[in-house]
Amino acid sequence: MTAIALRRSAGPRPLARPAAARTVAEAAALAVGYQRVRAATEALCAPLSPEDAGAQSMKDASPAKWHLAHTSWFFETMVLSRRPGYRVFDRRYLDLFNSYYQRLGRPFERAARGLLTRPSLQEVMQYRAQVDRAMLELLAGPVPAASRTLIELGLHHEQQHQELILTDIKHLLSRNPLQPAYGRPPVVDADVTAVPLRWLRGGGEVACGHGGPGFAFDNEQPRHAVLLAPYEIASRAVTNREYRAFVEDEGYRRPELWLSDGWAVVQRRKWRRPLYWARDLRSAFTLAGLQSLHPDGIACHLSYYEADAYARWAGARLPTEQEWEALAEEPAAAPQDAPPRLHPGISDGAWYGGVWSWTSSAYSPYPGYRAPPGVVGEYNGKFMCNQLVLRGGSCATPPSHLRRSYRNFFPPEARWQFSGLRLARDIA
Amino acid sequence: MTAIALRRSAGPRPLARPAAARTVAEAAALAVGYQRVRAATEALCAPLSPEDAGAQSMKDASPAKWHLAHTSWFFETMVLSRRPGYRVFDRRYLDLFNSYYQRLGRPFERAARGLLTRPSLQEVMQYRAQVDRAMLELLAGPVPAASRTLIELGLHHEQQHQELILTDIKHLLSRNPLQPAYGRPPVVDADVTAVPLRWLRGGGEVACGHGGPGFAFDNEQPRHAVLLAPYEIASRAVTNREYRAFVEDEGYRRPELWLSDGWAVVQRRKWRRPLYWARDLRSAFTLAGLQSLHPDGIACHLSYYEADAYARWAGARLPTEQEWEALAEEPAAAPQDAPPRLHPGISDGAWYGGVWSWTSSAYSPYPGYRAPPGVVGEYNGKFMCNQLVLRGGSCATPPSHLRRSYRNFFPPEARWQFSGLRLARDIA
Amino acid sequence: MTAIALRRSAGPRPLARPAAARTVAEAAALAVGYQRVRAATEALCAPLSPEDAGAQSMKDASPAKWHLAHTSWFFETMVLSRRPGYRVFDRRYLDLFNSYYQRLGRPFERAARGLLTRPSLQEVMQYRAQVDRAMLELLAGPVPAASRTLIELGLHHEQQHQELILTDIKHLLSRNPLQPAYGRPPVVDADVTAVPLRWLRGGGEVACGHGGPGFAFDNEQPRHAVLLAPYEIASRAVTNREYRAFVEDEGYRRPELWLSDGWAVVQRRKWRRPLYWARDLRSAFTLAGLQSLHPDGIACHLSYYEADAYARWAGARLPTEQEWEALAEEPAAAPQDAPPRLHPGISDGAWYGGVWSWTSSAYSPYPGYRAPPGVVGEYNGKFMCNQLVLRGGSCATPPSHLRRSYRNFFPPEARWQFSGLRLARDIA
Amino acid sequence: MTAIALRRSAGPRPLARPAAARTVAEAAALAVGYQRVRAATEALCAPLSPEDAGAQSMKDASPAKWHLAHTSWFFETMVLSRRPGYRVFDRRYLDLFNSYYQRLGRPFERAARGLLTRPSLQEVMQYRAQVDRAMLELLAGPVPAASRTLIELGLHHEQQHQELILTDIKHLLSRNPLQPAYGRPPVVDADVTAVPLRWLRGGGEVACGHGGPGFAFDNEQPRHAVLLAPYEIASRAVTNREYRAFVEDEGYRRPELWLSDGWAVVQRRKWRRPLYWARDLRSAFTLAGLQSLHPDGIACHLSYYEADAYARWAGARLPTEQEWEALAEEPAAAPQDAPPRLHPGISDGAWYGGVWSWTSSAYSPYPGYRAPPGVVGEYNGKFMCNQLVLRGGSCATPPSHLRRSYRNFFPPEARWQFSGLRLARDIA
Repeated sequence: MTAIALRRSAGPRPLARPAAARTVAEAAALAVGYQRVRAATEALCAPLSPEDAGAQSMKDASPAKWHLAHTSWFFETMVLSRRPGYRVFDRRYLDLFNSYYQRLGRPFERAARGLLTRPSLQEVMQYRAQVDRAMLELLAGPVPAASRTLIELGLHHEQQHQELILTDIKHLLSRNPLQPAYGRPPVVDADVTAVPLRWLRGGGEVACGHGGPGFAFDNEQPRHAVLLAPYEIASRAVTNREYRAFVEDEGYRRPELWLSDGWAVVQRRKWRRPLYWARDLRSAFTLAGLQSLHPDGIACHLSYYEADAYARWAGARLPTEQEWEALAEEPAAAPQDAPPRLHPGISDGAWYGGVWSWTSSAYSPYPGYRAPPGVVGEYNGKFMCNQLVLRGGSCATPPSHLRRSYRNFFPPEARWQFSGLRLARDIA
Repeated sequence: MTAIALRRSAGPRPLARPAAARTVAEAAALAVGYQRVRAATEALCAPLSPEDAGAQSMKDASPAKWHLAHTSWFFETMVLSRRPGYRVFDRRYLDLFNSYYQRLGRPFERAARGLLTRPSLQEVMQYRAQVDRAMLELLAGPVPAASRTLIELGLHHEQQHQELILTDIKHLLSRNPLQPAYGRPPVVDADVTAVPLRWLRGGGEVACGHGGPGFAFDNEQPRHAVLLAPYEIASRAVTNREYRAFVEDEGYRRPELWLSDGWAVVQRRKWRRPLYWARDLRSAFTLAGLQSLHPDGIACHLSYYEADAYARWAGARLPTEQEWEALAEEPAAAPQDAPPRLHPGISDGAWYGGVWSWTSSAYSPYPGYRAPPGVVGEYNGKFMCNQLVLRGGSCATPPSHLRRSYRNFFPPEARWQFSGLRLARDIA
Repeated sequence: MTAIALRRSAGPRPLARPAAARTVAEAAALAVGYQRVRAATEALCAPLSPEDAGAQSMKDASPAKWHLAHTSWFFETMVLSRRPGYRVFDRRYLDLFNSYYQRLGRPFERAARGLLTRPSLQEVMQYRAQVDRAMLELLAGPVPAASRTLIELGLHHEQQHQELILTDIKHLLSRNPLQPAYGRPPVVDADVTAVPLRWLRGGGEVACGHGGPGFAFDNEQPRHAVLLAPYEIASRAVTNREYRAFVEDEGYRRPELWLSDGWAVVQRRKWRRPLYWARDLRSAFTLAGLQSLHPDGIACHLSYYEADAYARWAGARLPTEQEWEALAEEPAAAPQDAPPRLHPGISDGAWYGGVWSWTSSAYSPYPGYRAPPGVVGEYNGKFMCNQLVLRGGSCATPPSHLRRSYRNFFPPEARWQFSGLRLARDIA
Repeated sequence: MTAIALRRSAGPRPLARPAAARTVAEAAALAVGYQRVRAATEALCAPLSPEDAGAQSMKDASPAKWHLAHTSWFFETMVLSRRPGYRVFDRRYLDLFNSYYQRLGRPFERAARGLLTRPSLQEVMQYRAQVDRAMLELLAGPVPAASRTLIELGLHHEQQHQELILTDIKHLLSRNPLQPAYGRPPVVDADVTAVPLRWLRGGGEVACGHGGPGFAFDNEQPRHAVLLAPYEIASRAVTNREYRAFVEDEGYRRPELWLSDGWAVVQRRKWRRPLYWARDLRSAFTLAGLQSLHPDGIACHLSYYEADAYARWAGARLPTEQEWEALAEEPAAAPQDAPPRLHPGISDGAWYGGVWSWTSSAYSPYPGYRAPPGVVGEYNGKFMCNQLVLRGGSCATPPSHLRRSYRNFFPPEARWQFSGLRLARDIA
């Protein structure tokens, strides 16, 4: 699910090695970033009781405690354990908090993470503290380039888990009839309305993928040229009002609107509306508990099947990821500890910060893609099957984590992420 | 799973109503018992962290927090809610902590109890405190007979859950690769050995079921006569050494030793030894963590299928529940807060305090059985299908809860209880 | 499912061996019986196309072709293969048509019997012909007692499969939207009505089980004494009209009427009426296609759960098997080729020939029961778990196969057999 | 699974309508094609008994009888039922033999097709005969263009089912321990060896999709330009020898070689070798029964996961469908009744007639794709999710059905088709 390997690419070679160790100044900057990202993770978990942090509501989700531990495991395993003199906190954690790295041992059974009542939340925080001490010690001096690359990767990895902490805790709380709130709802100005829908035009030969300086995951590379037929893409995401019209038009009862597999899921799971929506179609469970749905708010918690069916109903289609990337703006810069929001806002045309936009592109390797060698490269490529690409970034994505070339990916049935859509269409 | 309805029977009539309200002195005695049982439950949970108390390791087991709440729910729903002036702690708890009483609402989904991170453990303890205050207030004055009967039932009900707290937490901890201990192992004198196996003889017309004064569940009644063919029953439970011989004789590989359904389970679940035994057959996971198996210790955590297969292998059979009851001794009296032990001891011939003994008797109503009217009577009878009777009482059973006529029952596949066997055989 | 081991018991010893070989005259009588039973099986299959005979509509049912082969396999394996000079028809059939005898090899996967398009129906009939030739050759001379016992067993075994051929083909045809008929409906005299319901009284010490001369399965033995509390049993089976009143009184919507496991099945399988009943509750799929339900006809295709819920709704209960046996009449004698009927008739009070009556007795060994040694004894006992006893015999049972001590057994969920109920109640 | 909508495209417009009715001569030519295709289907079923033709070995496969009926249903529903005066053979067939056209009624449950023992094979052949008579009557005169288009579509549709008849019957027979043969193995010249592996080069801007005259399915259109990075593709398919080396190198035990989902399937299904291969890796079940594997034969019955893992092990990758199409040759012309072969031959470099080649391309719409209006257009697009494209055509594909732009598609787990692979790689 989470892309984890990276390439720093000014040229065509994967994992280009910087010529020499970085200066102490560079390490210090990294130390600042490290502290900010780590603190942001803990801030997200602050409202959680030990019980909240330990429970797992479905196989796809993980307990917050597990996220706290796994992100530390990443630094311990990938960076610290190779350093002379470092003693691992607890050898048994090496398997316990391994997500899916088969070369590193036998990851603990994913569906049973909620049963790990030990170590306690407090012990996991001690684990984090030891890792942080050792990391900051390391970053106090010059850091070899390879380690620096891995540390940067680890921070982006941790930001991915920050988003998952929110989506997973939301799913957990939604299963509780008490409908508990994780936090306060974002304030929405009552006068704000969605921007009018316009169609932005694109087509022709475009470049796709990450090509500049700065961090990117391996799956965003290499940058390559693509030919696009003329197309249009909507200037903003689909709203709750628009999606409700689809529901009220019996959208969930009409097989002709659905992909065959999607229709099977609708039947099997008895889907009648987006995840978290109440029966009245006017309110929904949110991270702030049950809240009324703003009609101009961005529709979210849609599966790919629902996004696709909606688009068909609307006489349009989903964009490909290349179509999306060609017209999307760059995200604004943000500090590494800028907090995410708890719900998408009004559909104001922003390309980031509301929902992840489903695209019609299967998650496949870019031409010339190669997984990086070694453990960190083991696993991005291995998820390139049965998933669809989502673009943009949601309210729950750390703002400094956003990137135009970013490729998020989930199976078509997934809808516990903040996922929605923008429409696209051909120009005849 | 848990029998909950009772009958107080000096005569043949079910639910004979005491003529009048009891005196204050009687209520005071009940208050003492109430406090002891309630305190014993909390003492059992004392070693648990909030995370431990909240997790659910399988559908059959419940979180300790849920047990704490449900046993309070019982008093609130059955006794307090009928009292004028009582205000329920939280209306939403009425469904949340309802186990299976369909007439009282819609019980929360059993398999999802581990997702109830709210209310917190602390809130549940506040719930207990409110219920305790109201109950002790009630017991400060004369108590109507009907309430007295329900309170007594509630205390026995809570003792059943005390045993489940231990078996459920054991199962949960067993799923954790850290193999954490709940408590210290009982001390076993190194010189103690199992008593030699003798055969006790029985047969003829015997009385079966609860007939005297004192509390008994409805399913132990009415007392009735049964004809038994001549038989023998072993003077003690099967030991680890004996059961290990069965395992080492390829007992789990020989279909001819097994019931057809049992063999299917052995294949499907890949059973190769009792639950919690390590591969070496010399150690096992216990409530005190991994411990070596005493050869003369009582074999436990056997399913009915395993008990039955062992008996066949040994050239014997399981006793019926009537055969067991006819020869068993009465248990010793014990105070209501006598604590259970964490593991069965040496096979010393005691009928209680080691393991529950599987019998070959399907859990069926006794002749003339009638479920009591109303809610409390709704549900003992409804489990009388697909289950087998176990007799005696285990190390985890509160000592004051033991009774010769007691009928415990579980499906044949269950093995997370402290269950074992005594052999029986026909006298030709 | 099918009981197959037998004991011939004039005394208390299982498998008493006759002193010497029988005379040729006795063998000739057996030969006549053999031919009649074998011909009756084939007559039942005569209306079936090769496709009908080859399909399997669920795991519990088998194709008619498989029944034809398996009943021959029984004689070949148990009787002929031990004879010098006999050559098995095809060695591969030994596993292919083995039902569940683990000591005889590896039975072919039960759920995949419908995939055995080879051997063809024609080849299976050739297999039957070879077995018949060899069997009749054997029966042309004096037959050793052991073989005689096995042959008699084989004939009763085949009669059991005759009933299954009808119930299995009915289930198969019911899955076909064309609602094809297997045969013509039995003619019912329009003037006939159900006999009025009376209550027959019983109780006290009774003998139970097969004790006289003549054939019986091992599970009907040994005969033994049982104490019964005073009770009453209905003079006839529950009718369609009566059962319909239960359905119309929302019987399938009221959890308080059901066993807990039964209620779970009702929910999971969305049961709303007996198997094969149409929505209108006035017609049902039968072996003669869709037919209107005679109000006074015997209600059938009920699971144990439905029979039990109906009885509770009616203020009664199911009888135990001992209660049933104590009051039931002996069945009338019938020739071995008397054909079964295709549907139960009017509820006329007969104890046999309508439906199998569910009893509340779990299928357990009688006191002193021992499975006979060797292969034929392997498997009756092994089904003594998770099943309930049915008594009497249905319209589809070969009339010469009926017996007062007969113990049929099925899991509580099964309802594709011709199963119904008689009510019983305690005498206070 | 089966693509069914078509477009006749000399230009860029989908479903270009021919200006007027065709002449009688054109209809006569179509009548010849019709007869050839229909006869070819029946010839394929000639070796099957009624039982063979009726059984269904898994949900993905269908009985041959069902294929025979469904292909007739297609002509009846799409062409004949709109004609005045035509009477449908049996109204109930309209649902019974509807595959998945939700707008045409309620298709009979896919997994239960093997239970349709009625209509019999003979009745289905009568159904075919009626449809054939009516179709040939229609084709005796001038045929409106719309009908002509649909008839042509129906013939291609029937050819798709011809291939499925072979793959489905192979799967069925493989489940039978008798290992029956459907036909004779193709003769392989003992001296023939695989051609040496060479690498063919491609890249740059290429046209993709069907653009010329002649029939193509809608999913092959519109023709469009694509940019390809420089790459190489193998001159022939992977052989049994090569694939065996992968198996013997523990390919099925090394998670690092597999996609994550693929590895999960390998574990769950215990895959250790290709479907139908025997344990010895030297022989395999074929349509001619068990046969030894020719080392130079084309490896087949591989899932996408296996093809992908093999490629990774071999230091290569799978081609995209565009890469495949850019370098593949056109297939040779063949008459409509040229029979398929029963097994792939030696790996001789041919692009067609051995196995379908897995590509790494998810099955997605081409840019500008639109499903045609009406029923026939309903369902090609609806399968464009969770499937991968295969290119080329197998031994079981009717030779006249092959086409360079043809897009076959199956889920990554499927391996009962004749599917294999060609390697590809980047040019650095």
